[in-house]
Formats: sequence, structure tokens, C-alpha cells
Amino acid sequence: MASLLRLPSLLSPSKPLLRRRLPAARLAAPATSRSQASAAAGAAAPAASETRGGDREGQVTPRSVDFNAWYTDVIAAAELADYGPVRGTMVIRPYGYAIWEAIQDYLNVKFKETGHSNMYFPQFIPYSFIEKEASHVEGFSPELALVTIGGGKELEEKLVVRPTSETIVNHMFTKWIQSYRDLPLMINQWVNVTRWEMRTKPFIRTLEFLWQEGHTAHATLEEAEKEAMQMIDVYTKFAYEQAAIPVIPGRKSRVETFAGANRTYTIEAMMGDKKALQAGTSHNLGQNFSRAFGTQFMDENGQIEHVWQTSWAISTRFVGGIIMTHGDDAGLMLPPRIAPIQVVIVPIWKKGDEKAVVLESVDSVQKILKEAGIRVKVDDSELRTPGWKFNHYEMKGIPVRIEIGPRDVTNNSVVVSRRDVPGKQGKEFGVSMDPSILVNHIKGRLEDIQASLLQKAITFRDSNIVDVSSYGELKEAIAEGKWARGPWSASDADELKVKEETSATIRCYPFEQPEGTKKCFMTGNPAEEVAIFAKSY
Amino acid sequence: MASLLRLPSLLSPSKPLLRRRLPAARLAAPATSRSQASAAAGAAAPAASETRGGDREGQVTPRSVDFNAWYTDVIAAAELADYGPVRGTMVIRPYGYAIWEAIQDYLNVKFKETGHSNMYFPQFIPYSFIEKEASHVEGFSPELALVTIGGGKELEEKLVVRPTSETIVNHMFTKWIQSYRDLPLMINQWVNVTRWEMRTKPFIRTLEFLWQEGHTAHATLEEAEKEAMQMIDVYTKFAYEQAAIPVIPGRKSRVETFAGANRTYTIEAMMGDKKALQAGTSHNLGQNFSRAFGTQFMDENGQIEHVWQTSWAISTRFVGGIIMTHGDDAGLMLPPRIAPIQVVIVPIWKKGDEKAVVLESVDSVQKILKEAGIRVKVDDSELRTPGWKFNHYEMKGIPVRIEIGPRDVTNNSVVVSRRDVPGKQGKEFGVSMDPSILVNHIKGRLEDIQASLLQKAITFRDSNIVDVSSYGELKEAIAEGKWARGPWSASDADELKVKEETSATIRCYPFEQPEGTKKCFMTGNPAEEVAIFAKSY
Repeated sequence: MASLLRLPSLLSPSKPLLRRRLPAARLAAPATSRSQASAAAGAAAPAASETRGGDREGQVTPRSVDFNAWYTDVIAAAELADYGPVRGTMVIRPYGYAIWEAIQDYLNVKFKETGHSNMYFPQFIPYSFIEKEASHVEGFSPELALVTIGGGKELEEKLVVRPTSETIVNHMFTKWIQSYRDLPLMINQWVNVTRWEMRTKPFIRTLEFLWQEGHTAHATLEEAEKEAMQMIDVYTKFAYEQAAIPVIPGRKSRVETFAGANRTYTIEAMMGDKKALQAGTSHNLGQNFSRAFGTQFMDENGQIEHVWQTSWAISTRFVGGIIMTHGDDAGLMLPPRIAPIQVVIVPIWKKGDEKAVVLESVDSVQKILKEAGIRVKVDDSELRTPGWKFNHYEMKGIPVRIEIGPRDVTNNSVVVSRRDVPGKQGKEFGVSMDPSILVNHIKGRLEDIQASLLQKAITFRDSNIVDVSSYGELKEAIAEGKWARGPWSASDADELKVKEETSATIRCYPFEQPEGTKKCFMTGNPAEEVAIFAKSY
Repeated sequence: MASLLRLPSLLSPSKPLLRRRLPAARLAAPATSRSQASAAAGAAAPAASETRGGDREGQVTPRSVDFNAWYTDVIAAAELADYGPVRGTMVIRPYGYAIWEAIQDYLNVKFKETGHSNMYFPQFIPYSFIEKEASHVEGFSPELALVTIGGGKELEEKLVVRPTSETIVNHMFTKWIQSYRDLPLMINQWVNVTRWEMRTKPFIRTLEFLWQEGHTAHATLEEAEKEAMQMIDVYTKFAYEQAAIPVIPGRKSRVETFAGANRTYTIEAMMGDKKALQAGTSHNLGQNFSRAFGTQFMDENGQIEHVWQTSWAISTRFVGGIIMTHGDDAGLMLPPRIAPIQVVIVPIWKKGDEKAVVLESVDSVQKILKEAGIRVKVDDSELRTPGWKFNHYEMKGIPVRIEIGPRDVTNNSVVVSRRDVPGKQGKEFGVSMDPSILVNHIKGRLEDIQASLLQKAITFRDSNIVDVSSYGELKEAIAEGKWARGPWSASDADELKVKEETSATIRCYPFEQPEGTKKCFMTGNPAEEVAIFAKSY
């Protein structure tokens, strides 16, 4: 076991958020010493040391000082995830999982609206399946986890633990599809997948992760292309409207296309450190897998043809994208539409006789907001000061905080604070408790925050994309950590040269293209499209 | 690959239920010949041969003739599942998966209401973890799938593919729990699990299956016991109220207790062939895992103690239980509350000019029912006759069918048929299309069916449980395929003797116990409880 514990602990001794029973007494001293002990033991661990019994959330490394350290600190302090015992694996904690559930809830509805059904394929795939599609095996074989022993016996054929399911899907589609009347066949599954990644990072790249993978089969290339585009569009809308992430949708270069696809569409997001994150992909697989697996159908004229296919996926990586797009030095910052908790109410009282009257108002405000469909949490624990709670829920990225003290009760009003506007500027005093006024006010603020996060991210993105017309300009932009956009029609070899020399890759040929004739910035030849280059996760 | 294909194909050439695009022409002859070819190829396959182009759903083996063949036939014909390429694995098809989603939707809400949060633990568990709890390793080691190669290299330590997660959960709980204030810790995960079963059966026992596993840690034995009982109660309510399965909740005997638990509670369901199905379990784990993994907390008095734990699970096996409880010779029969489709509307017309007017009414009825929250599907395909559709949706177990023909339109009424009452007795003519009348009528019928399925199952169950007062009587009851209930205080050895001689095991000591003093039917000694013995899946 010890040999597997290669990653520093993300352990934060702060308490899980969702608890049925609240503790009844003040923090005891021994808890603090335990916490210090564990901090000492994990010397290499991210600085997620919340001081138990203290009044402040543990400091996280400032974003500007060390973006990567900030990222893992926030994950620990906001209790989003922890490292699993096996190298590169991740435990998704309740608060992190709730963000994933919000992503699932939205996409699952959209997938069904667009005609897809959920189902489940086994995760064990015969090794021979992977070998059937030439570029697929080339792309995935270095990353496979293999089961070789089952029920105490060496297996005749090694089993691959699902890295993606195109092969087993096609094996089954071949059984189910005979005629054009069986098409289109459009399914999705929400599952775990395993890729033996060497350099891992919580949410972004883990040995095992959760995703949805859609798989469809069609009678024509045009239908498959339309489907692949439809799904990247669903992802784009999700990113903009729900996650407030202004992704750039586009087509991958040949070099970056999925192993087994004819075309890969992608949404590329700019993280807070300006690195690109591939946040979702949709593949037009052509007939590559249907030829490898003999997935054929009889068309309307009685001809036997291979089906045309797509696949598309979004994973728990997206949670990492949300953290790295919106977070700041105070921690996580969640867009209201996907925030598991949209509003936290913190009661404030000093004298004992104030408590009952404040809590009564808190209870009433909570009910009003809940009935209006707002996801609200009350923290009336007496173990923590209001100041500690303010920091704690800022760390958790909860969009709106409501404070209610004795004077607020007297005035029939509350104090409303926005997570995205720090300090007094983000505070509104004297917001009426009158149900209709309060609900409208809070709903309005949530919408403001949603819009504001998106706008801020757009501004950040656009101020960090440089239009380049020479390789020198590209090098300069990349050296500054920015994205470079320029006309490109050079070779795959040139693309790999750029990667070697600058670490930047073509993120995509964006769908949105400038008008007019273009000249490749590398070769000077005519170019049909601009490409975006960037360093990426 | 060929060596892995050891199971007969469950391939049914009928079409998946949920399609975006309806086929536009009549079935071509070649489809029929293909179907015959595949039937010939799969000589050992269950008789799931729907005749394509014919007017009838393919015959399934009558339940009374061969219950097991009937079961696999229904799974194929209703398109619930198919065999995966690896021995013992199962592909859950959209219609089968939709039943699982209905189970998830209900339980997920109940778990959250009772204070549990969802999260995700990695599925790869260091082999050494499994060895830490003595009875756990004894119970699970014969069933493990082991990953020995990752990223092209032999691993230092073999990894177990999650058969259940107590070990990895405790490893993490040990990091997260320090104080009594961290308790209770109550989580759940919806995941896949792997057990290398030798004798598999779709849904009932497969090499990989889907389940939820709840895991909780508490400060006291009493709290853990209360939680274990609470969750078996959630399962019992679900079984009765949603799945219309009158399970018998009770406690497992020592011999049948989960590997690593102090007590296992179970819900036992009687299938249509009178065999018992363990349909859900809840374990009081005591301190077995917390001692093995050092999961300790400081109590209110500053003492360090081991936590008290529970775990509980329901799996895709439950889908098999639904099939085997309610199905009949015509196929599946779904309780309305968990039916993915509650009402199917079949339009009927002969002359071309009747079509538009019928479809207009169909559309309007569909809208009325949808708005009332009823899950409804219209099948207006012209490829199949109404008679074929009647059989098809009976096979799919849809609780209510509405027929609308030209005369019904004229009379502003519809014909309503119940799946659970065959023939004319189940048919009502002249049900008004008036929205409020129709909605009330259909809702009433769905409730009737729900209640009727439960009552029928209760009657069946109770007429097949025999009270026994001697071993001879038990043998007789078991030989008749029935369940035997009798006072039991004999030894584990006696229990194993009963199993050897009769194939029956103690399913549970039911919570509901008869009054009065009892004498063990095996030994004649005093007995505190009656136990239920039965053959089981």
C-alpha cells in the first residue's frame, strides 16, 4: 500500500459541507494539534491547512503566485476532491460531485431532447477489439489498464478496462443494425473510464475519470456530420449558458484528431493561467469503426453499406475547467446555474436573546427562497464565527451570501453579498424581506452574477488572443503565455515543429473565421482558415 | 475474441423503442431472411425469434413450460439487455436502462432526504486493502478481477477492480474523520462493480453490474444500527410502493451475513417460480472495517474510539426481480410507477381519409396526458399493424394502451386496455376524450394496476409460504418449490446440512415474527425466532 501512496494528501481537516447533524460544542484543542500533526506529516502536500479552531479559512496559495498550487489548494480547501490510494486516481468528494451532478442534470435532458437514450455497455473489452481499428490501437494502447486475472485464474485473453467504448459499441451495433430502418441509432452512457496517464492532475487528467460518451450510427455521412456538429453545439451552449465559460468551438487539426475519427470538433476554454483546456469533443468517425467491425445495413435500394458514426464526450475534467476559469484568491467561484448551493444564509447574533428572533427570520427567508426554487443553505452552527463562515463559503464559491442580524430583523431586511464582487462594493444593505421583493432581488443578483462571470471570462479570453502573421509573432505570443491565432495551411510536420519549439499546439480551427484571403504565417502559401495555437493542459 | 463468445446471443432483430426518426417504408423481404439466418446461427440461443415482417411479436417460451427460458426470452424480446462479448457481462439496452433510471430517480431522492450525499471513489483498489479485513478477503477473493498491467508495464501491486468499496471507503474515511464532530459521515455512490461470477444470468448475476452503495460512519453502535435499519426500510418501501414487490424484510443468518458485517438485513422477494431473490441488503459493519483501517475519532470526552459503520446496496439485479415477479406469457409487466412508458397510444385507421382525423385526436390525447405528467408514447408507424403493436407493447409491459379509431373520434372517446387484465375484461370502450375525465380515468387505472400488481404478488407469496414444525415438513415444502417458515435455533452446521440436503438456505429471520413460545423444528430446543428457508437465485 505504501508504495502506492505517491501523491501528496489533499486532506483538509475542515468538515464536509452536507451534514445531517450539527456538532454541539466548541472545537476542542486536541483537534488543532491533530491537524498540525497531519500537516507536518504531509510536508509535500498543498498548503490546504485550515487551522481548526481558528477563525479563518486556511490560506490558499495566491493565484498570481503559483497557479497550479492555487488550483490544488482550492480543491482541498473547498473539499472538491482528494487523492485516491492508487497513483493518479481521485476521490470526488460530495461538493465536487454535486457540481458534476449539475452538469449531468443539464446535459442529460439535452441528450434526451435530441433523441438519445441512455444505456450501459460493459467496461471490460476483449483486447482484440482494440486492435481492430488501426489508429485507435495506436492512440490508446500506451494508456491501457489490463485485467489478466479473473476468479483466481489467468485469463485466456487480456481484458481492457474501458478507455472509451467505440469498439464494444460497434461490436453490439453490428448485432442490432440490419436495415436503414434501424438507423439512426443514438445512445449515450454515463460511466467511468480508465487511461493510464503518467502525469495526472485532479479533475484535469486522472487515471480514472467519469464522463458521458455518446455513440450514434447513421445511414449517411451527412447525417453523421450533422450529429457531430449538433453535439458540439450542445456542449458550446452548455459551456456559455450554464458554466459561463466562453469556449471556442472549432475543428481539430489532423494531428490532434481523435484516434479513429475522420474529424474531431472541440470546445477550447482559456483557463485563468491562459493555458487551453479541451473541454469537450465530438467526433465524426466516418466508417472507420463500422469497417473494422462490419457494422452494415441494407439501404433503401437493397444495397449493403457500412454505417456512418459519431461519438462525443464531456468528462469530470469540466469541473476542473470551472475552477480554473472563475476562481480567485478567495477560492472557488461558481456560476449560479451550476452551483449546488446558490445562496448561503449566515445568521448573526451576540446576545442570547437575539438568537431566537434572528433564527426565526433566517428560517422564514430560507423557506421563501426554497419555494422560489433557489438552492439555499443555512449555516447556524455556533462553532464558527460569522467571519469564519464568510471566508468558508467564499472558498466554496457560493454565489450569494445573505446575512441576517438583530438590526436586520428589526428593519425587516437582509444584507446581500455577491461572491464575484469583493468587499463593500459587492454588499447591499437593507434588502427587504418581503417575499416577492426578496425573491426578485436574489434571482436578479444570481442572473447578474451568471452574466458577469461570463463577461469577465470573455474579456479575459479576448485580451489574451493575439492575431499573428508570422512564426516570430506566434513565438512571441506563446512566450507571453497567450493564445496565437493566424492563417495556417502548413504541414503536419510544421505543426509538430511548432509544438517542439514552443510547446504550443493547434487547439482548433475555430468555426468563426475572419473574412478575406489569408496567407499561411508559416509558409506564405494561401490558407483557407486561421488556427488557434496555445499551450494546453 | 471468439473464445470469449461463450454465451448464446440475446439478439432480437426487433427495433429499439426510442427513435427519433420513424422508418418510411414497409419492411423489405431481405430483412426476414437475415433474421432467419441469424436464428439458424444462434441455435443455442433463447427462442427470441421475432419474425420480421410478420404480424406477431416472436413467441417467448411460456412461463409455465420453462421459467428460465421464458425469462431470457422476455429480456430479448422486450429489448431489455443483451450479452456482452466477455463471458458473463451484459449490455443494458435503453429500455432496460430506463427501468434502472426509474429506480435511481426514486432512491436518489430518498437517500438525499435521509441525509446522504453522492460522491465517487476510484474503482481500483490496492490488493493489500482487500486483505485487511479477514472475513472480507475470504468472502471476496475468489471473485476478484485483477489489473496487473498498466500503461504497458507490470504493476508493483495488483489492483482489484471494485467488487464493493468498504476498504477504499475506510481508507479515505480515516483521512477525513478526526472528531465526533465529523460524524455521522453519510455518503452514497452509483457505480459499476465487478465480481467474477461463474454462473451468470442477465440482471440477476453478472460479472459486472450497476448498483448504489451507501457507506456511513457513526459515533455509536446504536446510531449505526438505526441507520442500517433505516436503509432496509427505504428499500422495503421502494419495493412495495414503487416496484409492487412484497418483499419480506429481515435479518440474515450468521452463515449468510455479508463478509465483514456484524449483521446483514435483507429484503427477500419471491419470484414467479417461487425461488427467492435477495433484492437489497443493509449491513451493520460494527467496527470491523474501522479497526482494520484505523478509522478513529475523538469522542466528546476526549477518548479515541473506532467509528461504527454501515453499508447498503441495491443493484441492477432488481430489474430482474421486477421481470420475474410480474411478467407473464405475454412478456414483461411493469408497475406504472416505475414504467418508463405508462401509456402507449395506438391509432387505428383503414381508409386514407381516416388517417388525418385519427392522428389529430391521437396528438391531442397525447398532449393532454403529457401535461398531466403521464409518461406517454404514440406509435403511429405504418410499418406495423395495430395487432402487432398490441402484442409488442404487451411484451414491453406498458401498463395501459389507448386505441383511437375513426369511430372513437366521432364519439369523442377512446378505448383503454389494461396490461394486467388480459382480453376483453381489461378493455373499456367509450372513455371520454374530455381532458379532465380522460386524465382522471387514466390516472385511476394506473393506480388500480399498481395496487393490483402488488396484491397479486402478495397473494402469490402468501399462498407459497408454508409454516413448518419439523425438518420433514420443511423438506416437503421445499420439494414443492415453496418457502418454509419455522422456528429455528439450530447450529450453523445444521443450516449447512439443510442447504446440502434440500438446496434451501435461510433467506432471513423476518422482522415480523409470530407471538408466543417457539421450538426449533430441527432440534426441539427453544427458539426465539422463525426463519424462512427457500431455494434462491
